[in-house]
Amino acid sequence: MAEKKKLVSEITSMDVDFAQWYTDIVKKAEMADYSSVKGCIIMRPYAQALWENIQHTLDGMFKETGHENVAMPIFIPESLLQKEADHVEGFAPECAWVTHGGNDKLEERLCVRPTSETLFCEHYAKIVRSWRDLPKLYNQWCSVVRWEKTTRPFLRSREFWWQEGHTVHATAEEAMEETLRMLNIYAKFFEEWLAIPVVKGEKTEKERFAGAENTYTIEAMMHDCKALQSGTSHYFGDGFARAFGMQYTDKNNTLQYMYQTSWGVSTRIIGAIIMTHGDNEGLVLPPRIAPTQLVVIPVAAHKEGVKEKATELYEQVKAAGIRAKIDLSDNTPGWKFAEYEMKGIPLRLEVGPRDIAEGQCVLVRRDTREKTVVKFEDLEKTIPALLEDIQKSLYEKALANREAHTYTAKSLDEMKSILAEHTGFIKSMWCGDLACEEKIKEETGMPSRCMPFEQEHIADTCPVCGKPANKMVVWGIAY
Amino acid sequence: MAEKKKLVSEITSMDVDFAQWYTDIVKKAEMADYSSVKGCIIMRPYAQALWENIQHTLDGMFKETGHENVAMPIFIPESLLQKEADHVEGFAPECAWVTHGGNDKLEERLCVRPTSETLFCEHYAKIVRSWRDLPKLYNQWCSVVRWEKTTRPFLRSREFWWQEGHTVHATAEEAMEETLRMLNIYAKFFEEWLAIPVVKGEKTEKERFAGAENTYTIEAMMHDCKALQSGTSHYFGDGFARAFGMQYTDKNNTLQYMYQTSWGVSTRIIGAIIMTHGDNEGLVLPPRIAPTQLVVIPVAAHKEGVKEKATELYEQVKAAGIRAKIDLSDNTPGWKFAEYEMKGIPLRLEVGPRDIAEGQCVLVRRDTREKTVVKFEDLEKTIPALLEDIQKSLYEKALANREAHTYTAKSLDEMKSILAEHTGFIKSMWCGDLACEEKIKEETGMPSRCMPFEQEHIADTCPVCGKPANKMVVWGIAY
Repeated sequence: MAEKKKLVSEITSMDVDFAQWYTDIVKKAEMADYSSVKGCIIMRPYAQALWENIQHTLDGMFKETGHENVAMPIFIPESLLQKEADHVEGFAPECAWVTHGGNDKLEERLCVRPTSETLFCEHYAKIVRSWRDLPKLYNQWCSVVRWEKTTRPFLRSREFWWQEGHTVHATAEEAMEETLRMLNIYAKFFEEWLAIPVVKGEKTEKERFAGAENTYTIEAMMHDCKALQSGTSHYFGDGFARAFGMQYTDKNNTLQYMYQTSWGVSTRIIGAIIMTHGDNEGLVLPPRIAPTQLVVIPVAAHKEGVKEKATELYEQVKAAGIRAKIDLSDNTPGWKFAEYEMKGIPLRLEVGPRDIAEGQCVLVRRDTREKTVVKFEDLEKTIPALLEDIQKSLYEKALANREAHTYTAKSLDEMKSILAEHTGFIKSMWCGDLACEEKIKEETGMPSRCMPFEQEHIADTCPVCGKPANKMVVWGIAY
Repeated sequence: MAEKKKLVSEITSMDVDFAQWYTDIVKKAEMADYSSVKGCIIMRPYAQALWENIQHTLDGMFKETGHENVAMPIFIPESLLQKEADHVEGFAPECAWVTHGGNDKLEERLCVRPTSETLFCEHYAKIVRSWRDLPKLYNQWCSVVRWEKTTRPFLRSREFWWQEGHTVHATAEEAMEETLRMLNIYAKFFEEWLAIPVVKGEKTEKERFAGAENTYTIEAMMHDCKALQSGTSHYFGDGFARAFGMQYTDKNNTLQYMYQTSWGVSTRIIGAIIMTHGDNEGLVLPPRIAPTQLVVIPVAAHKEGVKEKATELYEQVKAAGIRAKIDLSDNTPGWKFAEYEMKGIPLRLEVGPRDIAEGQCVLVRRDTREKTVVKFEDLEKTIPALLEDIQKSLYEKALANREAHTYTAKSLDEMKSILAEHTGFIKSMWCGDLACEEKIKEETGMPSRCMPFEQEHIADTCPVCGKPANKMVVWGIAY
């Protein structure tokens, strides 16, 4: 087991330095690499395979609910970005600007899209004429660029990959319904596919997307008890429609403005998976989304018939619809165990000469290390059951972590004393006043995460100003 | 049928003006729209759905042959682009340059990737250490930017979507094998999936990719008998490896340079489909790649039971694995017929009250307009057979067009006299001298398309200089 020790020893323990633990996993599990472009990452094959599973699943959910994919240009002319005042104020400071095409200076600067509301607005203004053309439910998968100062792989980088849905509707009600429908799809995807529990809620005005009337969010808690904003869905009302002249004729032949939404999740999801489920041996991937669900490793592979039997079991498992791989390389079993633990593969199937003699093999869970001896003929039944159990355990463990680190407070002092000893979510009432929100952030370092849909009555008054308060807010330090 | 006339009349006949016919189809079939960014298009849902089918099919072929997807940064620092002399000379004149991030001027300009050889080289130099790490077979799906002066949707635009494969190998032989393997995959995909026959061959030195030792190509002939370079595969030898210091230790513990390939196809494929199969009523899509293979249209839909039966048949057909849709809108059947002909849907299923009484419906082929009356219970058998037949017919028709417009010439004068009356491919011998190639281009307007793998002996001498020539070249005016 010398090799195992060597490999694992290169990961910093998460209790010693969580940030370094994260960076070590990203590197050692071969998820991402740095490029010579500062702040931009290379998404390596293993992360890309995970992202493709995420894309495939979400894309199916989008299409089932009537959405169509499009591809918008990568550039936005400066004048187009400027059409909606709040929006340009929010994004212009972090745009990458193209000023030259070949040897010629451009007449107008183009920004590399940080988000594509303005492009969709322009397109919708052109293609929607009457109520018959509505709704338009478009989405695109692409990368976007935001010139961030401080970057971390998957969590915050100058380029990141995402999907951005942009829809227009005849009425405010329909647009609001869409905004919440997509938030619910995100929540379902996080909880059922990624095994990550989320708090659904609305952002305060201060934390809204630039140009939105309402922003809804799903917030997850990481291992270190910090929050990760994991997906957002925005309701724009007719604000952009007015700025971009997006009108249609209704059934009474009257010109009306369209109502609009946008919603997105990004490769941050990969960061969320790492920081929710990972441990000191590496990644732990939820079986439903893992590129490889099971790896077959022959033990004493030089002995007669071992490689052959391992291959046979691999074929048997694959034929049962399990995403499997086999490692027949010359590396030692110990090295392989460590390698696939690092990669977070949910199940390992070990088979050696004695197992073969007894018609059985050993399944080892990545999450608990629990071993199950299984007869060859039971593999098709046992593996899916184990994978489902791992999926469920991961969710429960993450939920337990969140519940153990969610606190309630009735005063600012109480907040501070909780934070003196713990990191986590703090629930409190809030009067709705920006000044009180800013004061909490200033004194505790915690921005508001959201006003959860599931409200609780914690107190009668705002913890800052003491005035009557009927909104519960979740606060937390965030990535 | 008044509506049909109106819709179709908006398409220019391809015999009157082929370029305008193309533009009309792109617009009327809702494939693409222009954006406010000059030279960049919006890929609308119908084209995007077609592109997703293309991606899905090709991606499967790539993965079956051991390739993995990655995502490289969107930007290339100017100094990195400059590392390989031929490459920078080829691409720098058409780069879009980012000079500012937010309000700050960048220390070094970044170009928006026109192609990613340099990024892959830098990454491979870093991650490949020993012969055990080879080969690396990476691909990415992304968009790239080239600052073209004249643009046309799908054929040449400033941003286009593509895949770029980049591989590194231990030996020259393996790299050359990969180069040709991928060319063959492209050819198979074009012929079997897109029903487009291609000429496979090698580019002359003049037409090579910037920095390549050999470039291989598939060339297709469009309706108007012009050529479309449809996919290329490049062998780099160790040229980039030397420029980028890409070395590995071989089995004898000696440092060696890697050998490299790259290969790509783009959304040009959509242009190829339009210009190979389309007609004066609109698009004609090959069934294997069409987003929708069959559309169900009820006739006299207001009559009792018609919509219900149409819906039932639609469900029946979908359950049989056909990609189907149904149009239950209030538009007239005539309008719908024209609409789905414009969209190139391979089969139309019409069903009216009299059909229902007789337990049958009518299938109409998009390509030949041929009608087949089918009993409801035979649909599962008849539709796949018809789709296969359409696929085959489209290929044969395209092949016949190419064969009818491929000529041979023994002299420059003969070339000119053919071109005086015809457009098409001209096959001739060539001595291998750049001057003769340039003379042919200058005097006839035809660049060389390729030196086909299937060589013929047309003459003993070069048509220009009269010296001995043993290479056959195909020449043609190209998009």
